[in-house]
Amino acid sequence: MNAPSPATSPARAQRPAVGIDLGGTQVRAALVGVDGTLLARAARATDVAGGPRAVLGQMQALVAEVTAGLGGPLGDAITGVGVCSPGPLDAATGVVLGISTLPGWVDIPLAAWLTEALQLPVVLENDAVSAAIGEWRFGAGRGLRDFVYVTVSTGIGGGVIADGRVLRGRRSMAAHIGHMTTAPQGEVCTCGNRGCWEAQASGTALGTLARRHAARTSRSALAGLGHALESRQVFEAARSGDALALELVAREAAELGLGLVNLLHLYSPERIVLGGGVSSGFDLLHPGIERHIRSWALPPFRDVPVVAAALGQNSGLIGAACLVLHG
Amino acid sequence: MNAPSPATSPARAQRPAVGIDLGGTQVRAALVGVDGTLLARAARATDVAGGPRAVLGQMQALVAEVTAGLGGPLGDAITGVGVCSPGPLDAATGVVLGISTLPGWVDIPLAAWLTEALQLPVVLENDAVSAAIGEWRFGAGRGLRDFVYVTVSTGIGGGVIADGRVLRGRRSMAAHIGHMTTAPQGEVCTCGNRGCWEAQASGTALGTLARRHAARTSRSALAGLGHALESRQVFEAARSGDALALELVAREAAELGLGLVNLLHLYSPERIVLGGGVSSGFDLLHPGIERHIRSWALPPFRDVPVVAAALGQNSGLIGAACLVLHG
Repeated sequence: MNAPSPATSPARAQRPAVGIDLGGTQVRAALVGVDGTLLARAARATDVAGGPRAVLGQMQALVAEVTAGLGGPLGDAITGVGVCSPGPLDAATGVVLGISTLPGWVDIPLAAWLTEALQLPVVLENDAVSAAIGEWRFGAGRGLRDFVYVTVSTGIGGGVIADGRVLRGRRSMAAHIGHMTTAPQGEVCTCGNRGCWEAQASGTALGTLARRHAARTSRSALAGLGHALESRQVFEAARSGDALALELVAREAAELGLGLVNLLHLYSPERIVLGGGVSSGFDLLHPGIERHIRSWALPPFRDVPVVAAALGQNSGLIGAACLVLHG
Repeated sequence: MNAPSPATSPARAQRPAVGIDLGGTQVRAALVGVDGTLLARAARATDVAGGPRAVLGQMQALVAEVTAGLGGPLGDAITGVGVCSPGPLDAATGVVLGISTLPGWVDIPLAAWLTEALQLPVVLENDAVSAAIGEWRFGAGRGLRDFVYVTVSTGIGGGVIADGRVLRGRRSMAAHIGHMTTAPQGEVCTCGNRGCWEAQASGTALGTLARRHAARTSRSALAGLGHALESRQVFEAARSGDALALELVAREAAELGLGLVNLLHLYSPERIVLGGGVSSGFDLLHPGIERHIRSWALPPFRDVPVVAAALGQNSGLIGAACLVLHG
């Protein structure tokens, strides 16, 4: 045995880490223990107008807030900081290449900025990959060698654990699953193409479809909601037995199922974990998803379970902290 | 440094290996040097009627034939034997689970049978994965950390190298790329679904489409070929400027492009290598494939090159040998 290096010494490994989740609406931070426990949390409304430098200041304030209870210099109290952000980004160099919901975030060396500001190790990761890591270490993917995390909200993102490691690929850009084409003649996507999975099956897509159908009927609880009608209202109405809502849920399950079957064939996971806003309707969607998989997947893939994420909106935060806790 | 173990001793590493490629038409074998050179080759028409035991005998005879020039006992002369076969199969246990073109090949412990017969280490691998490994070690994917091999023939198969390793997934079933749905309302596939990529874009699909169109025209070199019309004739006629053939080639390129764009987004390779029978028309297909990628892939994926396989029909054979040469 060699002597333990500083990075793996027991003392260091037992220190908590800070996870930061940069979103278009909120910047959130948490102090996370080595066992995945959330020890402290804080959030700010993202200073969109202030741009990257203003948000850097927000991150510094959040780190100070969640670590306020720890004694001594920050460098002794925590292992480091993991940040997750929407992509595209370069995880290897810690540079945010662009964030569609945050103007001015182009080629921002966020990890370097934070390292300089905090004098701590900082790691940057894609938010969906980070959530996958969180679920892998402490959530619904715990202990698995092969699993796929799918987040279905405004868009569709994902992270893949393959053969016991995070699947990265060239420039860490693997698992851009939302822009897999599942319907070449389908809906127009924000990326300009037709029939990307996220244009067919995201929460946004479900909301759009619901508004289109609700406008044509008066016999549904969804009629008359106008622009307030989003995927959440569809699930609520479906729980009350509303026929249109149930039909929309069935269609959403089939669209999700179509992409999930592709993920089964391409990655061969032991389990698929579904997170994001749409997973609030997981219980409603699950039977339709399972039905689609049983009829469309090749036989040896049909028994792979699809389950709901276990860490809710914290999987990204916890995953980001894991990047410095567990490397 | 520890003393080298028998498996990695220089003497052992310099011995060649035998690769065997089990196909529905032919069983082929080659003696492969550590540098990927084909030192000897032999083939037999697969004894389909004789079943697995008869084919085992053919494999033994082929191994004897390609190693005839080597002196001494077989165990001293070669490192071992790698066998590749159509799937599904369990690479970890060396069991062929089923081969659609070979009746009776259900749950056959081929690696164990061959080990017993030859008294040598034997490794079993999926044929497309094996071809990917061959191209990775000695062909068009040499030196890359992330690349995807796609074989387009009767069906579509593939193998993925991700982050410097073969992507395996649960039960080594990753990269069943041919059954990715790319057109939910598309052609019926042999698996029973609609719009699998291989139902849309394999050599078989191109041949079927060509016969359908040729039957409706007299103004093409393809008219009147009847059942003899396959993808090869389409490429030949396209090279002579035949309008229908050129249209079919353009359509094939777009169908291939659609799936390739998905592979870019999902695996993020540095390069895609195209092999199999249809790659004989690679020069004709390439411009259309590139066009499709440039308009359908997200911007950071558009510069990934698609190239032809370098080892031709030997990539599987060489890859199978690599399994024992390089582990």
